[in-house]
Amino acid sequence: MIKGTNFIGKTASAKGKDSLFAINPTDNSQLAGQFTVATEAEVNEAVEKAQSAYSVYQELSSAERADFLDAIAEEIMALGDELVKRASSETGLPEGRIQGERGRTCNQLKLNTALLREGSWVNATIDTAIPDRSPAPKPDLRKMQIPIGPVVVFGASNFPLAYSTAGGDTASALAAGNPVIVKGHESHLGTNDLVSQAILSAAEKTGMPDGVFSMVNGGIPVGQQLVKHPLVKAVGFTGSFQGGKALFDLANQRPEPIPVYAEMGSINPTFILPHKLEKDPEGLAGIVAGSITLGVGQFCTNPGLLIAIQSEALTKFSTALESAIAATPPSTMLNEKIATSYYKLREEALSQKGVSAHGNTAKLEKNKGNALTASVDAQSFLANPKLHEEVFGPFSLMVVCANAQEMEQVANALQGQLTGSLLATDEDLNNHPKVVSALRQKVGRIIFDGMPTGVEVCPSMHHGGPFPSSSDGKFTSVGKDAIYRFTRPVSYQNWPNQLLPEALQDGNPLGIWRTVNNTFTKD
Amino acid sequence: MIKGTNFIGKTASAKGKDSLFAINPTDNSQLAGQFTVATEAEVNEAVEKAQSAYSVYQELSSAERADFLDAIAEEIMALGDELVKRASSETGLPEGRIQGERGRTCNQLKLNTALLREGSWVNATIDTAIPDRSPAPKPDLRKMQIPIGPVVVFGASNFPLAYSTAGGDTASALAAGNPVIVKGHESHLGTNDLVSQAILSAAEKTGMPDGVFSMVNGGIPVGQQLVKHPLVKAVGFTGSFQGGKALFDLANQRPEPIPVYAEMGSINPTFILPHKLEKDPEGLAGIVAGSITLGVGQFCTNPGLLIAIQSEALTKFSTALESAIAATPPSTMLNEKIATSYYKLREEALSQKGVSAHGNTAKLEKNKGNALTASVDAQSFLANPKLHEEVFGPFSLMVVCANAQEMEQVANALQGQLTGSLLATDEDLNNHPKVVSALRQKVGRIIFDGMPTGVEVCPSMHHGGPFPSSSDGKFTSVGKDAIYRFTRPVSYQNWPNQLLPEALQDGNPLGIWRTVNNTFTKD
Repeated sequence: MIKGTNFIGKTASAKGKDSLFAINPTDNSQLAGQFTVATEAEVNEAVEKAQSAYSVYQELSSAERADFLDAIAEEIMALGDELVKRASSETGLPEGRIQGERGRTCNQLKLNTALLREGSWVNATIDTAIPDRSPAPKPDLRKMQIPIGPVVVFGASNFPLAYSTAGGDTASALAAGNPVIVKGHESHLGTNDLVSQAILSAAEKTGMPDGVFSMVNGGIPVGQQLVKHPLVKAVGFTGSFQGGKALFDLANQRPEPIPVYAEMGSINPTFILPHKLEKDPEGLAGIVAGSITLGVGQFCTNPGLLIAIQSEALTKFSTALESAIAATPPSTMLNEKIATSYYKLREEALSQKGVSAHGNTAKLEKNKGNALTASVDAQSFLANPKLHEEVFGPFSLMVVCANAQEMEQVANALQGQLTGSLLATDEDLNNHPKVVSALRQKVGRIIFDGMPTGVEVCPSMHHGGPFPSSSDGKFTSVGKDAIYRFTRPVSYQNWPNQLLPEALQDGNPLGIWRTVNNTFTKD
Repeated sequence: MIKGTNFIGKTASAKGKDSLFAINPTDNSQLAGQFTVATEAEVNEAVEKAQSAYSVYQELSSAERADFLDAIAEEIMALGDELVKRASSETGLPEGRIQGERGRTCNQLKLNTALLREGSWVNATIDTAIPDRSPAPKPDLRKMQIPIGPVVVFGASNFPLAYSTAGGDTASALAAGNPVIVKGHESHLGTNDLVSQAILSAAEKTGMPDGVFSMVNGGIPVGQQLVKHPLVKAVGFTGSFQGGKALFDLANQRPEPIPVYAEMGSINPTFILPHKLEKDPEGLAGIVAGSITLGVGQFCTNPGLLIAIQSEALTKFSTALESAIAATPPSTMLNEKIATSYYKLREEALSQKGVSAHGNTAKLEKNKGNALTASVDAQSFLANPKLHEEVFGPFSLMVVCANAQEMEQVANALQGQLTGSLLATDEDLNNHPKVVSALRQKVGRIIFDGMPTGVEVCPSMHHGGPFPSSSDGKFTSVGKDAIYRFTRPVSYQNWPNQLLPEALQDGNPLGIWRTVNNTFTKD
């Protein structure tokens, strides 16, 4: 049952006077529930409880934290249809998609659970002492990853489960040993409320300290207060460039700057190389159209930029792409703000010099988003920074190059991106080494002969590209390495063996992989 | 032979009108050589050459980069006595210390060489495809670390070789595959000039691209221009908090923010616990005095803060410490600015409420620094942020606590530190778990029963603590992991095997350790 309160640790709290309401984007009707905005005092209390929980939580064994994360997945599943229906009605996403995303959310929690139970993720490194080394004895040094303190999480509107309240950031931060405070997303308030209750129920059942998880409702002021709080040590964010950059700046202006791991979207340039294009322009157009329109284009990996060299095959491709796009029925976007923004940014793009629309430029009612492509010549694209910006939604701009050299110029002019794709044959890659090399420099993931949509959750996935696609391209927000956003190394020097964390003790009681005197071993 | 020019890649260049001169701190006399400040055009040229070199340098094999780093070490040794004498006369450091530091510098280069030749440092991770997975095929994903682009290095005055022109930052950045531009340190201009020539000679001999290394002379404006240049992708810095924080802020205000890895010093709190103290207060005082006065206190790991509980043993310790400090002959500090700053900050500390000096507070002439300790009660320390700041030089403040609870308060009130030490027995650690736990939260390295001075270069060393000791406590500036400051991961999706980097190819042609489908293996 939706409560509509904030959750300050295990305490349901609603001391504020302001409320938020949930809206169904299909008809802009108000959904059940009234969500009380957190007061300044409640926000402070949530952070202070997190700090207090931290002293207990960070000392728990990996297995105990794993039990907590497993329990969260169970409690989310136990919400059953109520969660699926609510998330669907708050986002316009079909119930089947929500069910799939729920599975992904639980899998992410379990990936962290597996990481904790196996234990080697702490990167234990041991160099034993050489007391009689000359001129000075070598000390005993042992290093491992430790948690950092309370983490604030801002979820994404486009993944109401997998990148929100119990999403990837929360899972990573909790797994690492940090309490989490979620700023509830205004676009899916009820979903957030239900999932928060599931997390707190899991915390209760597994005996976690009060304050290990809190959730506060509110807008920008609540978010800013959280990021500025001196006890908060890191921020996870998924959303727009404007939102992420504002938090990044705020965090860096603190007396003690803290990291903001912001995944801020991308235009995911997709190069269509000549040899591949000639083979089957119509078939390729169908694949590209499917990726552009998937989920009403509301993915951070949506291919917002296509780049190709002028040719007969390209003309065929473009005609087929226009038809395929026109044949895709429009669907409801996540909320009114996103639909409005989609049409506004699309119109701005279409009004730029050299840009031609290919298809129906009408603006639909009731938050429905219709897909559209447009094209522009390479020189106009290169000269206009506006055309390098993301239009969040089912829109893609084709940059038509006169020749391979122009294509290289476009690759070199790109900003940092989450992904870059090459629709290509082996021969194409060999013919365009400079495009490949330039693109690799700009992206976190480079894809051969495939579209960027679809982010596999596995150890080799890197979801985080150079700025402005992410605030720190060194870190991924997907996969097992996502945990390292919320840890730091510490070295123990000459520490008594029995007082070391188990991961660093002689005899390797946890049986984990460690680097001992430069050798990787379980001994 | 000292040239006095800038080195814009392999070109000795001196187009500017302004010059800098090197000073011998023992008598403030001017040393041979006139060092031309780089013009704006020269700085731009250095960065553009670095970018152009980058396209070649990043594609070289690890073995080729290793040959370059080995050659740098050889060329530094080939400078022979000229380098030792010059570095000594520019810094006031004894020739024996310079020789030792030269060995450390070469060892750091060779540590990176070994890392490159072994090859596993790229963290290759492979997840092979499952084409028939339902509902969607699993793609082939392969991830590794790649270089990021031109890196700017600001060296430290207190390590004219090991943390300067060819020091740890330069070694890490070059090893990772990035060109380096050094802003020559004004406190050892001739040393910098000679070492730059050694690096360029090594680049020439091993066939590195022009621009892989540049060095520019100048003050703050030259440094700022480098950090603001859009082609620069990261900064390494070792020095004062003021200097590091200014660069950090500048880098974050760029349209594309870049990381500044600044190691900004520390007061290295050293807790003296009761059981240990009682055993041999006089012997312990000798050890502590040795650490405070080592290198005229000019180490980032100098113990600037001692914390103990009032007792008879502490009185004995303090008397012995004062004697040992008084018996240490004063030595020349690195330069006039540092000596002046030492006395100014020391006087400021002594003038704070509750602070008493123990020993000779005289200010010496000719940049000589005399060691001194002082004491303050815990409540005055807790109430006064000024007393938490570093006094760079041979000064240490003893915080006298009334009881264990006050000692815990002090531990909790500390800022981020490179190190924290506990002069303790096992029993002491067991008696003071909250001090241990609070201290671990504040430091990058926690030391049992030893002093913080002495930074072992090995895989388990973490030299980097929470802010303000470092700008990013996740990264170390010492040891093999220092390379990761200048790399980022990239994932290749469905990439043709023969076009992948060798580290990711089937069959593991480099024979490195890799994670393949969740198993760590060389197969």
